[in-house]
Amino acid sequence: MTSSSELVALARQLRVDSVRAAAAAGSGHPTSSMSAADLMAVLLDRHLHYDFDRPEHPGNDRFILSKGHASPLLYAAYKAAGALTDEELLTFRAEGSRLEGHPTPRGLPWVEVATGSLGQGLPVGVGMALSGKRLERIPYRVWVLCGDSELAEGAVWEAAEHAGYEHLDNLTAIVDVNRLGQRGPTRHEWHLDAYARRFTAFGWHVVEVDGHDPDAIDLACQEARSTAGQPTAILARTVKGKGVAAAENREGLHGKPLADAEAAIEELGGSQDVRVRVRKPAAARTMHAVRSGHLELPRHDRGAAVATRTAFGQALAALGTARGDVVALDGEVGDSTRAEYFAKEHPDRYFECYIAEQQLVAAAVGLAARGWVPYASTFAAFLTRAHDFVRMAAVSGAGINLVGSHAGVAIGQDGPSQMGLEDLALFRAVHGSTVLYPCDAHQTGRLVAAMADLEGVRYLRTSRGDTPVIYGPGDEFPVGGSKVLRSSDTDRLTVVAAGVTVHEALAAADLLDGHGIQVRVVDLYCVKPVDRRTLREAAERTGCLLTVEDHREEGGIGDAVLDAFTDGRPVPRLVRLAVRSMPGSASPAQQSRAAGIDADSIAAAVRLLVEQGVVG
Amino acid sequence: MTSSSELVALARQLRVDSVRAAAAAGSGHPTSSMSAADLMAVLLDRHLHYDFDRPEHPGNDRFILSKGHASPLLYAAYKAAGALTDEELLTFRAEGSRLEGHPTPRGLPWVEVATGSLGQGLPVGVGMALSGKRLERIPYRVWVLCGDSELAEGAVWEAAEHAGYEHLDNLTAIVDVNRLGQRGPTRHEWHLDAYARRFTAFGWHVVEVDGHDPDAIDLACQEARSTAGQPTAILARTVKGKGVAAAENREGLHGKPLADAEAAIEELGGSQDVRVRVRKPAAARTMHAVRSGHLELPRHDRGAAVATRTAFGQALAALGTARGDVVALDGEVGDSTRAEYFAKEHPDRYFECYIAEQQLVAAAVGLAARGWVPYASTFAAFLTRAHDFVRMAAVSGAGINLVGSHAGVAIGQDGPSQMGLEDLALFRAVHGSTVLYPCDAHQTGRLVAAMADLEGVRYLRTSRGDTPVIYGPGDEFPVGGSKVLRSSDTDRLTVVAAGVTVHEALAAADLLDGHGIQVRVVDLYCVKPVDRRTLREAAERTGCLLTVEDHREEGGIGDAVLDAFTDGRPVPRLVRLAVRSMPGSASPAQQSRAAGIDADSIAAAVRLLVEQGVVG
Repeated sequence: MTSSSELVALARQLRVDSVRAAAAAGSGHPTSSMSAADLMAVLLDRHLHYDFDRPEHPGNDRFILSKGHASPLLYAAYKAAGALTDEELLTFRAEGSRLEGHPTPRGLPWVEVATGSLGQGLPVGVGMALSGKRLERIPYRVWVLCGDSELAEGAVWEAAEHAGYEHLDNLTAIVDVNRLGQRGPTRHEWHLDAYARRFTAFGWHVVEVDGHDPDAIDLACQEARSTAGQPTAILARTVKGKGVAAAENREGLHGKPLADAEAAIEELGGSQDVRVRVRKPAAARTMHAVRSGHLELPRHDRGAAVATRTAFGQALAALGTARGDVVALDGEVGDSTRAEYFAKEHPDRYFECYIAEQQLVAAAVGLAARGWVPYASTFAAFLTRAHDFVRMAAVSGAGINLVGSHAGVAIGQDGPSQMGLEDLALFRAVHGSTVLYPCDAHQTGRLVAAMADLEGVRYLRTSRGDTPVIYGPGDEFPVGGSKVLRSSDTDRLTVVAAGVTVHEALAAADLLDGHGIQVRVVDLYCVKPVDRRTLREAAERTGCLLTVEDHREEGGIGDAVLDAFTDGRPVPRLVRLAVRSMPGSASPAQQSRAAGIDADSIAAAVRLLVEQGVVG
Repeated sequence: MTSSSELVALARQLRVDSVRAAAAAGSGHPTSSMSAADLMAVLLDRHLHYDFDRPEHPGNDRFILSKGHASPLLYAAYKAAGALTDEELLTFRAEGSRLEGHPTPRGLPWVEVATGSLGQGLPVGVGMALSGKRLERIPYRVWVLCGDSELAEGAVWEAAEHAGYEHLDNLTAIVDVNRLGQRGPTRHEWHLDAYARRFTAFGWHVVEVDGHDPDAIDLACQEARSTAGQPTAILARTVKGKGVAAAENREGLHGKPLADAEAAIEELGGSQDVRVRVRKPAAARTMHAVRSGHLELPRHDRGAAVATRTAFGQALAALGTARGDVVALDGEVGDSTRAEYFAKEHPDRYFECYIAEQQLVAAAVGLAARGWVPYASTFAAFLTRAHDFVRMAAVSGAGINLVGSHAGVAIGQDGPSQMGLEDLALFRAVHGSTVLYPCDAHQTGRLVAAMADLEGVRYLRTSRGDTPVIYGPGDEFPVGGSKVLRSSDTDRLTVVAAGVTVHEALAAADLLDGHGIQVRVVDLYCVKPVDRRTLREAAERTGCLLTVEDHREEGGIGDAVLDAFTDGRPVPRLVRLAVRSMPGSASPAQQSRAAGIDADSIAAAVRLLVEQGVVG
């Protein structure tokens, strides 16, 4: 352990390097880094257990910089730990540098999740701490360095509630209370007691310290480590811009390099090269052994009525039996999403997140960071609540499975607040995502299993009501594929459907056949990436694609088919049936008819196109 | 005032009618209604001031049923107040009935905002209470009936923080702590003290009561009304399914009609016809007088470099001067979004919401419900956090203006966490929304003014960096329109751009012109609804549309142009340039080049299409 004076020197160097990095970049957040430099110095030198040469070491502590804009401090700490050269430090924010404006795991094995959207670090940290305590049973600690501004985010209190309730004493939040947000003072400025009351109320142990007193910080960290049964919040009173008189506690300097970096560095004692020897973690068994066995998916009779949400629950439970790395989370609607089937069979790997969808997704991201394959479910409508977390999961490159049930008007009487009608648009727009929307039980089972091994954010959309089983248990549904369910040489157009509308499309095809009109029917169970080959072939053969979806007309299946035709090739004629009005309460059949996406509406639309001569 | 025994009779009737309504519908949430019946009876009979014949009365108290699934209770209360007939009550959840599964304002003038996505009632109620206290200065009270499950939502604590900080003593949350969520017990079951600690920590006055004791409830409401300087939370211990032994405190009955409704009604004392005379509000001046004057938008020289975010701030400040009903809210980034310009000129109509985007949007919805024209701004990336609130605003039919700054990779070094790259997809999918994306200062000013008078959710996307002024101060930009910036008889294709890419498209057109290739350039400043006429004409004339956008390829401008061609008409060839990778840190110009959406990339794409013979 270094002496207190050495700690002071380390903190000074972290400040100097933060100032230098921002100066080199011409942008960045040095003042937000300077307030937390003493906190970081003490943590790094005295409490963090981390092997920088082995970031995959299972016993490593986890460190999340929730106030991601203070990235110069993080990179300065990496340099002090010997993980980065000074030369690389000065590539901060340059094109191609892995030292981005806000930390991401890209190229930086010590960063486990991207931060920069405030209020997300603690929620994700809860997921990691849950893994350590309930799954891995390895005594690593999760340290989250938060800003004070971000405590205004409700997600922080979802996380506080989750951590308090689960007694996560392996989790510590260090709050850098520097009084100043981006635009001016925070609500509570330096009233640490305001934050203390809140964390205490949510079941946390709280320590208040002077965030520039290394010995006090050291004691607080010791207290956090020795507190059993509760997570600890270390509330540190700090000064933004600490160490440079012209910057200290001054408004208007957020997110800007210091005006006179050279003078600031001099005031801070000049450039130094203090090295810190970060403690190595204790030996720990390697990553949880992944039990992998044969997957036995449920089988159904053709024509049997099974809701895809039920098929999801059954498949997830089966997958959990086959694979020891699969975990499940739900937002207090497991009886509706059917995640409860998993919960009953694998209670040790099930996480009840209550009605807190941001925390639901964040915990999944945290679990994924620890190597688990999480499935997080709630109503599709309510997953919209967590969109910023999904977006950031994509920045992190996290592999998570999200399952939204009760999609579309097909839910019936509950009305629009419960209907997922925008979810396809939201998940399609997420970078690198996969969007799946099965129509029957066998298809659902296969997709639930397949999504486990994909990269990035995977979304599965399920339906409330029963739909007939139309596929066999041996049918395969590759991601990126589709199924042509009807086709003939005399198809006048192609109906592209998915989920509940597949069954409407098939019924419409029967109706139209009675009128001597043949149509092709494509089951677009994979909405992203779309099956370009099949869509292009259908376009060439039939000249017109009619999409029908239980979703808003924007961003869903109607837009997705376009992905097959945006390279300048000829585009088929397109007609969209989608939910264009605001539904009220009504039975599922009434809803479907009112929205104009039922079999009769499809058939009527096709006949009109034939009569108008739009299709050949 | 009725006697306590009459209150008991009223509560019984509310239960009976809840049971009857759900039985008639064959679905619904009677047990969740029964737990809160005594709370509702006391509130209705003794504390609510409301003129059911004049729902627009400015002095009316506001009542929000945050636990919207308990809609049978709400409708039963309306019946008891004489606002609904028994016959209509039994239309609950039927197609065409205004008594939807979860309350919406459609057809029900006493419902001010839709509920059903849990945890949104209190946040919106804060907006209304802010209006009453800070703007209207009318002593109405805002009563929000919450469930206990929904207190797990972080948005509730954003609201608690906002209300506590603003000393909203005109706001009361009544929490129906019935111990059971949908799937089983809540985290804190009947530990009222857990909730009490949390609300107290956030600065609320708290009263704990037996939620089935009318006198105790009455006293608690009196206490709430007489508490100055703090909002009050009444924590009521209740029994789910109260009054019917077979249903009381039983799991597995959530969201289901009672098994034996007839027996339940008998046990509850049979159908009755208790009427309640709800107190009328005191006289109040009519809705805040809307001052309306001449709008003087700022003028700029052609070619001057002005960021659209700056133009937004200037225009909003000017609009606030011209119109007394315009208010602004921001999520602690007013210096970046430029909402601070409004704050400086109209501090009395500016609401700092700190870093709590859900509360930001919810407060705007509450203010809109009180007749104000709110503009709520933050980074486009962070508005995604509030998507469920935006979705519900659309269900409510709320007229709100949302402004997302720092759109796209054009922000530069800060990296992907700060880039709005999915916002167009999210806002396009919202029912009835308008999506605007200006490219210069004059256009921004006009659109900021125009959006004030639109219906529904209006979204304006602004950019961080300066762009040249290309329009004159007198140019008009109708919503639903676009601008053809370049066109000739020899155009080979049409480049459709918006925002920052308009300038890239113009530069590309110049480059291409040097190579003897003419292209049409359309500024699609209104992304939704799109200008079908102009796009169709461009398609007919040039045969190919190349879209270029600083947004993900899904759900944005590339998809939006399709809206002009989904009626079966011939579709032009389409080519999309959009952000397909995950950006890192780099300068704006480097970002734009890396994403392939800069002038050189556009020109290269066009030349390739020409060489390949794709375009004529």
